[in-house]
Amino acid sequence: MAGMDPVNVDAMLARFSEHWSPKKIAQINDYDVRIVKLQGDFTWHKHDDTEELFLVLSGELTIQMRDRNVVLGPRDLFVVPRGVEHCPRADTETAVLLLEPSSVINTGDAGGDFTAEVETLS
Amino acid sequence: MAGMDPVNVDAMLARFSEHWSPKKIAQINDYDVRIVKLQGDFTWHKHDDTEELFLVLSGELTIQMRDRNVVLGPRDLFVVPRGVEHCPRADTETAVLLLEPSSVINTGDAGGDFTAEVETLS
Repeated sequence: MAGMDPVNVDAMLARFSEHWSPKKIAQINDYDVRIVKLQGDFTWHKHDDTEELFLVLSGELTIQMRDRNVVLGPRDLFVVPRGVEHCPRADTETAVLLLEPSSVINTGDAGGDFTAEVETLS
Repeated sequence: MAGMDPVNVDAMLARFSEHWSPKKIAQINDYDVRIVKLQGDFTWHKHDDTEELFLVLSGELTIQMRDRNVVLGPRDLFVVPRGVEHCPRADTETAVLLLEPSSVINTGDAGGDFTAEVETLS
């Protein structure tokens, strides 16, 4: 049978409640599609080897950068450039779809308590 | 200023009406995020060098493959494996977000009248 089964993003979001713990829901080549629920402030970090794409599914996400903030609502997307320090923040619970190389660690160069293994939902 | 401006997917969808003509709305590394409106039957084709991700934004998309069909509604995603022949079909107008390497041509190995240049919306 050719390929995966289709995946519904909302059904996958319903399967977990913890914050800042990305779940892999699909893979394309060597990139992961991950979903994550956010609330509060993350940690400042950067990814020196890759850009990172955020697509907001629900809620509101502020991506703080050193020279500006961007505020994203549902169906807004933003790409954080390689090597740019950023710190996501969500005042209320927010769901986000991430696209990034499968090798990416959520806290980038920063490490610390927010560092999470990426669980695969299937 | 770090990076692009945020992009709203719905605002981008409102900027065009033609079918089967993908528009690039963002780039992450050497991958494109494209949106496309579909209605009717596309052409059978495959991509020998890459997988291709479909995320339905509105409507209903059937991805016909030689050994099965998958039917995708809003917020369903599916990855067509490398080298697998497929033919998208939408009975009513359907909007889809695509993720694929920037080098990908919409008709893959098939060519023909559906082959479209990818316009960048910005």
